[in-house]
Amino acid sequence: MSRIDGRTPDQLRPITIERGWSKHAEGSVLVSYGDTKVLCTASVTEGVPRWRKGSGEGWVTAEYAMLPRATNTRGDRESVRGKIGGRTHEISRLIGRSLRAVVDHRALAENTIVLDCDVLQADGGTRTAAITGAYVALVDAVAWAREKKLLRAKGQPITGGVSAVSVGIIGGVPMLDLCYEEDVRAETDMNIVCTADGRFVEVQGTAEGAPFDRDLLNQLLDLGTLGCAELDEIQRKALEGLEG
Amino acid sequence: MSRIDGRTPDQLRPITIERGWSKHAEGSVLVSYGDTKVLCTASVTEGVPRWRKGSGEGWVTAEYAMLPRATNTRGDRESVRGKIGGRTHEISRLIGRSLRAVVDHRALAENTIVLDCDVLQADGGTRTAAITGAYVALVDAVAWAREKKLLRAKGQPITGGVSAVSVGIIGGVPMLDLCYEEDVRAETDMNIVCTADGRFVEVQGTAEGAPFDRDLLNQLLDLGTLGCAELDEIQRKALEGLEG
Amino acid sequence: MSRIDGRTPDQLRPITIERGWSKHAEGSVLVSYGDTKVLCTASVTEGVPRWRKGSGEGWVTAEYAMLPRATNTRGDRESVRGKIGGRTHEISRLIGRSLRAVVDHRALAENTIVLDCDVLQADGGTRTAAITGAYVALVDAVAWAREKKLLRAKGQPITGGVSAVSVGIIGGVPMLDLCYEEDVRAETDMNIVCTADGRFVEVQGTAEGAPFDRDLLNQLLDLGTLGCAELDEIQRKALEGLEG
Amino acid sequence: MSRIDGRTPDQLRPITIERGWSKHAEGSVLVSYGDTKVLCTASVTEGVPRWRKGSGEGWVTAEYAMLPRATNTRGDRESVRGKIGGRTHEISRLIGRSLRAVVDHRALAENTIVLDCDVLQADGGTRTAAITGAYVALVDAVAWAREKKLLRAKGQPITGGVSAVSVGIIGGVPMLDLCYEEDVRAETDMNIVCTADGRFVEVQGTAEGAPFDRDLLNQLLDLGTLGCAELDEIQRKALEGLEG
Amino acid sequence: MSRIDGRTPDQLRPITIERGWSKHAEGSVLVSYGDTKVLCTASVTEGVPRWRKGSGEGWVTAEYAMLPRATNTRGDRESVRGKIGGRTHEISRLIGRSLRAVVDHRALAENTIVLDCDVLQADGGTRTAAITGAYVALVDAVAWAREKKLLRAKGQPITGGVSAVSVGIIGGVPMLDLCYEEDVRAETDMNIVCTADGRFVEVQGTAEGAPFDRDLLNQLLDLGTLGCAELDEIQRKALEGLEG
Amino acid sequence: MSRIDGRTPDQLRPITIERGWSKHAEGSVLVSYGDTKVLCTASVTEGVPRWRKGSGEGWVTAEYAMLPRATNTRGDRESVRGKIGGRTHEISRLIGRSLRAVVDHRALAENTIVLDCDVLQADGGTRTAAITGAYVALVDAVAWAREKKLLRAKGQPITGGVSAVSVGIIGGVPMLDLCYEEDVRAETDMNIVCTADGRFVEVQGTAEGAPFDRDLLNQLLDLGTLGCAELDEIQRKALEGLEG
Repeated sequence: MSRIDGRTPDQLRPITIERGWSKHAEGSVLVSYGDTKVLCTASVTEGVPRWRKGSGEGWVTAEYAMLPRATNTRGDRESVRGKIGGRTHEISRLIGRSLRAVVDHRALAENTIVLDCDVLQADGGTRTAAITGAYVALVDAVAWAREKKLLRAKGQPITGGVSAVSVGIIGGVPMLDLCYEEDVRAETDMNIVCTADGRFVEVQGTAEGAPFDRDLLNQLLDLGTLGCAELDEIQRKALEGLEG
Repeated sequence: MSRIDGRTPDQLRPITIERGWSKHAEGSVLVSYGDTKVLCTASVTEGVPRWRKGSGEGWVTAEYAMLPRATNTRGDRESVRGKIGGRTHEISRLIGRSLRAVVDHRALAENTIVLDCDVLQADGGTRTAAITGAYVALVDAVAWAREKKLLRAKGQPITGGVSAVSVGIIGGVPMLDLCYEEDVRAETDMNIVCTADGRFVEVQGTAEGAPFDRDLLNQLLDLGTLGCAELDEIQRKALEGLEG
Repeated sequence: MSRIDGRTPDQLRPITIERGWSKHAEGSVLVSYGDTKVLCTASVTEGVPRWRKGSGEGWVTAEYAMLPRATNTRGDRESVRGKIGGRTHEISRLIGRSLRAVVDHRALAENTIVLDCDVLQADGGTRTAAITGAYVALVDAVAWAREKKLLRAKGQPITGGVSAVSVGIIGGVPMLDLCYEEDVRAETDMNIVCTADGRFVEVQGTAEGAPFDRDLLNQLLDLGTLGCAELDEIQRKALEGLEG
Repeated sequence: MSRIDGRTPDQLRPITIERGWSKHAEGSVLVSYGDTKVLCTASVTEGVPRWRKGSGEGWVTAEYAMLPRATNTRGDRESVRGKIGGRTHEISRLIGRSLRAVVDHRALAENTIVLDCDVLQADGGTRTAAITGAYVALVDAVAWAREKKLLRAKGQPITGGVSAVSVGIIGGVPMLDLCYEEDVRAETDMNIVCTADGRFVEVQGTAEGAPFDRDLLNQLLDLGTLGCAELDEIQRKALEGLEG
Repeated sequence: MSRIDGRTPDQLRPITIERGWSKHAEGSVLVSYGDTKVLCTASVTEGVPRWRKGSGEGWVTAEYAMLPRATNTRGDRESVRGKIGGRTHEISRLIGRSLRAVVDHRALAENTIVLDCDVLQADGGTRTAAITGAYVALVDAVAWAREKKLLRAKGQPITGGVSAVSVGIIGGVPMLDLCYEEDVRAETDMNIVCTADGRFVEVQGTAEGAPFDRDLLNQLLDLGTLGCAELDEIQRKALEGLEG
Repeated sequence: MSRIDGRTPDQLRPITIERGWSKHAEGSVLVSYGDTKVLCTASVTEGVPRWRKGSGEGWVTAEYAMLPRATNTRGDRESVRGKIGGRTHEISRLIGRSLRAVVDHRALAENTIVLDCDVLQADGGTRTAAITGAYVALVDAVAWAREKKLLRAKGQPITGGVSAVSVGIIGGVPMLDLCYEEDVRAETDMNIVCTADGRFVEVQGTAEGAPFDRDLLNQLLDLGTLGCAELDEIQRKALEGLEG
């Protein structure tokens, strides 16, 4: 059974990670999952939010947004509406949690890194692309901070890799890395965030149509784990040559 | 190994579901999971949101909120701050999706049911209590709508039961239905929403500390499925005697 | 002449005051005036707002709100609309002023007590029930603060009791403690806040229909004073046994 | 006993009502109570708010605001803060209710009149000046509407005069029409809104310091009633020559 | 060729500048350009915004607003809508920049002066009237600050005069100081802000209809420069007698 | 005299215009002025805003925004702050006006085109780059609309080219197309928007430091006109091959 875009069910879309996209940010990546393009910038600032001051620990957080015409029909700007929608909030929080899972905040010292993930073009899987790209931007930002002697002498702020991918069931078949057209047809949609050693950071499965049973859930978890392993490899290649 | 409150790892807190709590709402439930108390009201209105008009289908949605002193320290009101926080948005969306998974919107005809889930007292598991309670309020509201002849003559708007419970790993041990103190110590926190026949509507697992492996994930899913089966039983008893 | 619910014109609805409703708040009361139910919590925090710092005086303030389905038809949440309505503002201010009238801020030392009055079910008189209940919650919170040694050694932060009741003219007859159905029919509506010794803290009378003359005003004041005296008695009984 | 500005306790400040202040509005008045200056404009638009459509009745409403430097120290603009404060809300509602008490909405037909009361300079009593001035602007606007044939042929949209004044107790002495310095010293502050025939539309008394007893309340009501009678006279003179 | 109101193309409307309009503000001016009336108040506060602290320099800023019925049809209040419109923002910024162009912030010491420009009646040219009036209010406020010994002993905070006027092309003819009716018909609309010595602070030209060529631009600049020279004269006369 | 980046005073930065950047938008351009990169998308929707309905005319409008890390230090998102800043408003309005100057709204029929100009990387001149790029996106969007038969059969919605450039005076020397470092040092800053035939659509000059005289103004206008002529050429080349 072939997919809309000719892929096999367990095949990722073409993935590209372009580092150093922005001249200003301490880390920046343009990540593509097929036609989904997300600009991820990592901004380092000394100091931490008020509630964390004096803790000796840093903070990593994320903000996700879409350009109004990233999608097929133009959406209103959240700045114009004057409030952030539930979906934006939810995804920003997911990205932040996913990255913090591989951060040693003590080694970061009292510095803050904000990951801005702006979707320039959307074709499904924007949140997973954002996590995968933001990780690479974060690594670059940490390297920058090390060079500026902002970090603790000992310890490694990043404890391992993290990447994310969507999986879903379409016509009863589990498929990896859904594009938008597949996403809208999926009976079940799951986002999986894994560390480089194959453990889970987040598992979020939602029955869009009929509820799913344990067997299908297992197939989705298998597929997602494989996808993340592949993405981890792509991240490593993108980062090769970096002097950590 | 015994828990903070003396429960065994696979034991729910005392669960109560008090129907008909409010004199105004078409369905209303005060649900308790131990010290967590959530008031769930179901409001039926004729008509649907603009984007759904003319579809012949109804709509079910949910809004979750906490009273400012539901928690140990007082939180600012979201109405005073002038915006809804990310956590509130996320939970409202989760409750709405969970209930829609057991709703046949066509049978509902062009009516809207809003589930308001207001946490009067919080002690962990507020979103899962809200789902479990809101389901019962929804059943009552649908019965009311049937009596008022608002529904289609044929079909059943509610296709089955739905309930939710949290599970987590504390000190390496999977535990069911975490209270607040357990929740803050949990290495992994998962919310599971199941239908009455044991299939999944939502699975949301988050590594708060170390990432979790497949084996732990499986244990959590087992535990959550058992918990939901028990909750389904409690919902049924609460609803007994209802003339659907 | 008998009223909708069988009361005599000068009769209060059944009033209940349930202390210690919440496990978290320093003072908490579920107050009922018939079917009107308001949860009043008193939260003590050390320190005062910026404009009062260094004054050596504390601060007492209040926030009033309604759950969306406290009323017969569901109202939009003010948090969702992103702003607080005029009515909510007005009532919050009234409750705060009423309680401050019986507070010695100096004896309170630089502590803040916030009274949250959330209407769980509305059937007329929500603001007056909120004042009567909040007073009891405040007394409990002050007792808690005394035990925690937060107060000045000398002095008594609460200088006397305060309670409130609505009165109105329906069909030319002055009536005490209007329920919702009476409230909408009332030609004149007045809220009266009295101290335990029968003096006035607030008198707010509004001609809903025809303007009212001095004679009717006097009858309303008489009736309201009597009602508050009765409420004061109920408050005392609820507080009996408290170790001030 | 003489007052700060040399008046006797029962003396109004110099009151002026300047009609036709604005070239655009259908009615406009610059009203002064001593140094308090309020610009009141009445804007007539055909049609009514959605909730009143088809009722055959009009609507009168009011909005009150202060210029940022109307007061002794500059206040932030509510437009800049992005929300309207409680005091503003409360006063806008009071003005609207007071004017509606003398309006026959049926005679107005389905037209809306908005009274904008903007305080150009504040020296106590801004809300009472606003009511007194807005009434005159409203009369002019109704005359304009009559000329434009917007009203019902029969009936008189304005059923009588309305004016307002503050009274308060300073050093135990009841005084009429408080200026700002008196207002801050007042133990009790009351705003009284009366019709031209001496009946009450609103009575709002607040104990700023000690609660007040019935006797003082009566003295304040006496004084306020006298003040309104005098204001009614001033309004009449300002309106003389008008072809109603 | 005669204009709507009988002026010649290079003639200003009657300009009046009434100083000391408000009893509270450190400087205050009611400026009229024909029927356009703007109340400009200057408020002095010690201290500067956070970002300027410790710089040894002061800050001058401006806020512009319109009363809702300043115009022919009533506009919604920005405070009610909860946000400031683009036009308001743009004009506030223009006024602030224009005044800062003649301010020596060092001589001002760490004091802030806010210019509030509230349009009481609008008939075209409100932003230019605001600049011209605000300058005079600013001069008065600086004189007040000098008397209070808030300024540096040496130096002059105001380095020269500034005034503004609109020019436009109507029916191919350049005209000075457009009233509203002319403004809506203008093919090109330009606002010119000049110092007393005839140099430019701001030049903002907009083609409302057809783009304009260099020759017309030159004619507009000539006309605007002449207008500002005349306004400068009027400002001087208004300020005469002031002990700087 | 050589510039920071080695250009001559009358030399533009390298300008690139990449059409068809987005797969979703009807017109899309990534425009670069040196390191300034702006993504301009043109979205066509049938219908016009309410106030224009039934006019038979279309509408062109623009929204400008910056990604949070487009600049050297991260700025807060306007969506998170809940309001749009003055600068954003001002620039959005400028872009909209500039494009409407070359649009025949009648030929566009009742269609709306929104130009979204999102700054991905900022290095001075973002508003001018946005105008130049948005024009090209607009041309593509109109071509798309023609193909979809949305336009009037007769008439050409775009009446000519439009482009924009900044000019400024640094160290007394007029310079073309300022980069960020030059912009902050400029004594005078001017943005010029010209049509392809060299006439002016907007001229906005601001004295950042000392006011500027007529002679300098003339030099800036000369320089800006030349720059726009060059930009017009670059736009034409980018559009070559388009079947209008």
